[in-house]
Amino acid sequence: MSAASANTSTSGATATAAVMPGPGAPGESGRPCELREIPLPDLEPDSALLKVELSEVCGTDVHLRDGRLAGVPYPIIPGHVSVGLLDKIRGTITDVYGQPLREGDRVTFLDVHKTCNRCWYCLVAKASTRCPQRKVYGITYGLDDGLTGGWADYVYLKPGVRCIRMDGVPSETFMAGGCSLPTAMHAVERGDVTFGDTVLVLGAGPIGLSAVAFSTLRGAAKVLCIGAPSDRLACARAMGADDALDFTTMPESERRDWVRDLTGGRGADVTIECTGVPEAVTQAMRFTRDAGRVVVVGQYTDHGETSFNPHRDLNKKHLDVRGCWGSDYSHFHRSIEMLRTERAAALWSNIKPRRYPLAEVNDALAAVAAGEVVKALIVP
Amino acid sequence: MSAASANTSTSGATATAAVMPGPGAPGESGRPCELREIPLPDLEPDSALLKVELSEVCGTDVHLRDGRLAGVPYPIIPGHVSVGLLDKIRGTITDVYGQPLREGDRVTFLDVHKTCNRCWYCLVAKASTRCPQRKVYGITYGLDDGLTGGWADYVYLKPGVRCIRMDGVPSETFMAGGCSLPTAMHAVERGDVTFGDTVLVLGAGPIGLSAVAFSTLRGAAKVLCIGAPSDRLACARAMGADDALDFTTMPESERRDWVRDLTGGRGADVTIECTGVPEAVTQAMRFTRDAGRVVVVGQYTDHGETSFNPHRDLNKKHLDVRGCWGSDYSHFHRSIEMLRTERAAALWSNIKPRRYPLAEVNDALAAVAAGEVVKALIVP
Amino acid sequence: MSAASANTSTSGATATAAVMPGPGAPGESGRPCELREIPLPDLEPDSALLKVELSEVCGTDVHLRDGRLAGVPYPIIPGHVSVGLLDKIRGTITDVYGQPLREGDRVTFLDVHKTCNRCWYCLVAKASTRCPQRKVYGITYGLDDGLTGGWADYVYLKPGVRCIRMDGVPSETFMAGGCSLPTAMHAVERGDVTFGDTVLVLGAGPIGLSAVAFSTLRGAAKVLCIGAPSDRLACARAMGADDALDFTTMPESERRDWVRDLTGGRGADVTIECTGVPEAVTQAMRFTRDAGRVVVVGQYTDHGETSFNPHRDLNKKHLDVRGCWGSDYSHFHRSIEMLRTERAAALWSNIKPRRYPLAEVNDALAAVAAGEVVKALIVP
Amino acid sequence: MSAASANTSTSGATATAAVMPGPGAPGESGRPCELREIPLPDLEPDSALLKVELSEVCGTDVHLRDGRLAGVPYPIIPGHVSVGLLDKIRGTITDVYGQPLREGDRVTFLDVHKTCNRCWYCLVAKASTRCPQRKVYGITYGLDDGLTGGWADYVYLKPGVRCIRMDGVPSETFMAGGCSLPTAMHAVERGDVTFGDTVLVLGAGPIGLSAVAFSTLRGAAKVLCIGAPSDRLACARAMGADDALDFTTMPESERRDWVRDLTGGRGADVTIECTGVPEAVTQAMRFTRDAGRVVVVGQYTDHGETSFNPHRDLNKKHLDVRGCWGSDYSHFHRSIEMLRTERAAALWSNIKPRRYPLAEVNDALAAVAAGEVVKALIVP
Repeated sequence: MSAASANTSTSGATATAAVMPGPGAPGESGRPCELREIPLPDLEPDSALLKVELSEVCGTDVHLRDGRLAGVPYPIIPGHVSVGLLDKIRGTITDVYGQPLREGDRVTFLDVHKTCNRCWYCLVAKASTRCPQRKVYGITYGLDDGLTGGWADYVYLKPGVRCIRMDGVPSETFMAGGCSLPTAMHAVERGDVTFGDTVLVLGAGPIGLSAVAFSTLRGAAKVLCIGAPSDRLACARAMGADDALDFTTMPESERRDWVRDLTGGRGADVTIECTGVPEAVTQAMRFTRDAGRVVVVGQYTDHGETSFNPHRDLNKKHLDVRGCWGSDYSHFHRSIEMLRTERAAALWSNIKPRRYPLAEVNDALAAVAAGEVVKALIVP
Repeated sequence: MSAASANTSTSGATATAAVMPGPGAPGESGRPCELREIPLPDLEPDSALLKVELSEVCGTDVHLRDGRLAGVPYPIIPGHVSVGLLDKIRGTITDVYGQPLREGDRVTFLDVHKTCNRCWYCLVAKASTRCPQRKVYGITYGLDDGLTGGWADYVYLKPGVRCIRMDGVPSETFMAGGCSLPTAMHAVERGDVTFGDTVLVLGAGPIGLSAVAFSTLRGAAKVLCIGAPSDRLACARAMGADDALDFTTMPESERRDWVRDLTGGRGADVTIECTGVPEAVTQAMRFTRDAGRVVVVGQYTDHGETSFNPHRDLNKKHLDVRGCWGSDYSHFHRSIEMLRTERAAALWSNIKPRRYPLAEVNDALAAVAAGEVVKALIVP
Repeated sequence: MSAASANTSTSGATATAAVMPGPGAPGESGRPCELREIPLPDLEPDSALLKVELSEVCGTDVHLRDGRLAGVPYPIIPGHVSVGLLDKIRGTITDVYGQPLREGDRVTFLDVHKTCNRCWYCLVAKASTRCPQRKVYGITYGLDDGLTGGWADYVYLKPGVRCIRMDGVPSETFMAGGCSLPTAMHAVERGDVTFGDTVLVLGAGPIGLSAVAFSTLRGAAKVLCIGAPSDRLACARAMGADDALDFTTMPESERRDWVRDLTGGRGADVTIECTGVPEAVTQAMRFTRDAGRVVVVGQYTDHGETSFNPHRDLNKKHLDVRGCWGSDYSHFHRSIEMLRTERAAALWSNIKPRRYPLAEVNDALAAVAAGEVVKALIVP
Repeated sequence: MSAASANTSTSGATATAAVMPGPGAPGESGRPCELREIPLPDLEPDSALLKVELSEVCGTDVHLRDGRLAGVPYPIIPGHVSVGLLDKIRGTITDVYGQPLREGDRVTFLDVHKTCNRCWYCLVAKASTRCPQRKVYGITYGLDDGLTGGWADYVYLKPGVRCIRMDGVPSETFMAGGCSLPTAMHAVERGDVTFGDTVLVLGAGPIGLSAVAFSTLRGAAKVLCIGAPSDRLACARAMGADDALDFTTMPESERRDWVRDLTGGRGADVTIECTGVPEAVTQAMRFTRDAGRVVVVGQYTDHGETSFNPHRDLNKKHLDVRGCWGSDYSHFHRSIEMLRTERAAALWSNIKPRRYPLAEVNDALAAVAAGEVVKALIVP
């Protein structure tokens, strides 16, 4: 589709966007993002223009830069979770309560768009995250689709995009969690965390940290975290982890002993893998008690195979191992409902994002890739 | 424990039992079973003596012979599922309805004994199959525990053994399923088979065949089976499989295509792995649709590791992979309730067990090991 | 909306429809339906015209006639479940597999339309049957919406209507179940029927009969039915009921004894209420065992209050009582998947519908209201 | 059984116990409790004597006094949840981890004893709270069974009683919750409280207050409470209720409006009824949103019938109404695990129990009956 067909405004007004031109050669980091002026769209009926206040840089954006995701229509404007002000509305946009949104409202929007509600996955399997029509702002929408990422001063909210008013939720508190909020909530729910459980979180990136917090809020009696480096582990403790271990300091067998020592020799009731390392999936199985649950939410890109022993690690353990892909509107909505409570807001306020102007998105990407910051925010 | 402490009768009467003396050298099949005369026990209060009518030879017995299971107190009397007549009762034995059993009643009994109902696994995790006190007739009870296996003309039903009256269920129909009944019912329940589902069963041994039948009874719209050899596949079809594939005739990629062709390109909704081959677990993941369920019930012994891709095979697929270990009284009881119905009895009557006298247990073991018979029964 | 705005064809061609003009005075049966010629619509993009082969008359239609449902936009064309041939398609209509439907295809369609996938009930509660935008052909669509009921030789399938190809399912077998199929499947699923359960169905109308059949297909070991008259009970037996009781022959206390006698004194594991009588809900609670489940699917119209004892009938029994309203595409789709199997088709073929031409819809309504027929079909 | 057969010690030592001699005449409060000297038992193998530190007076004790419970073997020693020191152990008593308890350990014990793990309810339905063998200290054990209630300076822990060490949990914090802890945890779990839910608790007695706190800990975004009087509502707010309403100040219709105003017009997602008033069950249904859940845990005694409209209150609402009877070891164990966390301990520390010496149990009962205290504790 040409940019023109993507509904370009005839007014001549433009937005400034950071455009990711394409992935690098295999094994290299990608080409740097560059600022471009993109014509503002003529609004279709029941669409809107969002003036971006904050957008995020997450691990997925690093994968996008490095060409580790399939099906990305480069060039793209990254930035899938953002918050901002409704600048201009054409027609009517309502929230899920049927209330019309107004220009000037501070909102966020679900990055997932076009889940079809017509296909077998949507209607029979009720697994909308596997709907083939699903599009994601900043990831599977590209520049040809218009202003479809948050690393820009404006985002075009196409008809059907789902907005949520942010009354009572500070933008920075929300963006400190960002896309990790619905992802981690989904993972904790897939883990069937029960009152009194010990939850082990593998990984201390944004998803791991949010998984720690949601496990605490769900009624776990003990939350453990294995990750690195030490400042992230300190953050994990502040967000509810009762104990945290730097995995770089000891081999797998000692880590297993550490978990067992803290769980009466049994292993965790629920382990949530948020690492990105294939071997961590097998470790998660081994760190979990018999008849427990493992949620795998850290394998969003292909890092190759790993091996395990189906008898010892799975069948004899009577284990549940649950992949957790994406999230739907419900997770997004309920994450924000949780942030409206003081006790949840206090947890995420422990994450201190670093802010970058739009012109420094490449630095932001580098800082996230290097693990220098837990969360980088773009301030267009 | 000495045989004496195992409650030997002072009467001098004996039972004839086939005793498995111990496992063979690694990689070899074990030493042959031998007939021995075992003194009948003096009955403890609320115990009984069962006159065995039929006992079974299953794959686990082959594993026992070959030393592939841990924690087996050789020498043992194999035979964990049996049916017979209550020969002598001391005190009172009741069924779960509180009805006293009578001498002369035809019964079977749950091979699992001593689940403690006192430990963390029993009481908090409610995962009694992981109770450390759990003992199994014919497997983890040995000769020192007395007449604790079905390959004998008498079995000693210790206090607390749970018996079920077999009224309305022919002994051979029940024994045709034998231990595969509760195991496969448990697996099908773990698979959350839903009306309209396509269930794929990997393996056409007794557990696979029973999984086919229970899937049919549970409301699957289509049941597929991949196994061998052809007579077992014919049996699978008779027990409810809509289609069956001999895996020896084509490589894995073609088998996957076969499944996809029969499932609109998606893969099975539920796959139940009953093969004993580690690689089959990864295949099960690949043969299953996104957001589907895989039940692993075929990895009862350690055949080593296998590899998979956590991104492609698990996380992106949003898959549930569920190990399924053992079964409890509920599965055993409800299996027999099902066999009291005509439609279920008709399914299992398709399995034609071959009968062996006690003196030929080694032949029976060899026939089962070679896959020559679906089910071998011992007639003491 | 005027008929004109409902997209009237400019061709001058018409369909013959049986129109229900409005409800009668309170306590009376409504005014008779009358045949009218309705202009065929100009097809909107991605819509179609269905040539009706069979439509049904169900209990809801009697309630419609008698004004017992709220929010009905009389005059209406009743007939919510129908089967027919796609006569004319404008644009593209696909099934859930994304396959385009062709003119000439034999199909049915989900009567529920316009579930919005945008509101709190659709997206957060995931309870689409409570979506406020939901419209139902033949019930909450009226004549002003066009040809929106099956008692006509043509039905207008508006854009977004969901069609299913009927290959392999005879029209009459499907229509013998009709709207009771998804309703009863939903109820049986809400009942969490487990292998070995005894299911008690109260009521022997179409929903009750389909609940009997689905309970059988779901793995119940015993299905009981209390209803009337005797020919329906005979049908219940043919569809899988192990025993059936004519409730007109004995008082409630004796019916309870009958259930208890057949359930070891405990009551049914699951009771599915399909009667339309408020008192039956309390009876369902009393006929069910402690810690069992009651599904209430028979209270689709307001017949007033009933009383129960919250201590004895609910709290002390640790009972689950589950209302079951409507169904969604999944139930409809999977019902038809089930009918593609021989064992399910055989069950519903026991219902022998009586056929009526369009001109005799009032007779059909009278026969259904009087319980003279289990199922009446309209043949336009 | 005579007191002698209940294992009376031959030493001549006695315990002082408050004995409830029997219920009053219908409609009257019962006869006063009286102090008696009860011989200490000779300990059976694997039993123990507990020196009571604190025992509780709960609403059930008032019902016991007033003869509102069936099957109570008066005279009895009330006091079902207690904490104390293990004074004397004969043989071995272990906790669920298999660790032996020592004389001097501070423990509590599960009041439920003798759940049989042999009957249909225990083994097939897995509903141990409906096991017919179940006995409860202080309620269905009577004086003939020995020192079987906490209103005494010693309690006899029969073989099989399940003890939990209280390390890290102050006795008063635990006893402030007392029996309401496992009861309310069970109710909140039955309610399937989800992240973001609004939970409405009806009743502000001990169970209601604990339900408020557990809802908060489970991830509810908003917790509402309707009860009385104002000091209990203040306690509810301190324990996590976002808003609380005194039901004595407004009629039912206004209360419903209050709930709807706070829930976007829909009603609560989950309502937990903890009132003891039959009408409250119907109100709970009406105060809950469509497709929501109602848990009925306040109807522990028979206060008669109430009426509801099965169409409007249940079926059309697609509601789940779940009775919740008793609790099992798992709820008890996990309640205490939760109290080991700071955030849970802080919640229950808001309840300020009033202490009474053993000689004043009748005053304590009167204060609880009159609602003067939230929780009364007996200090023997």
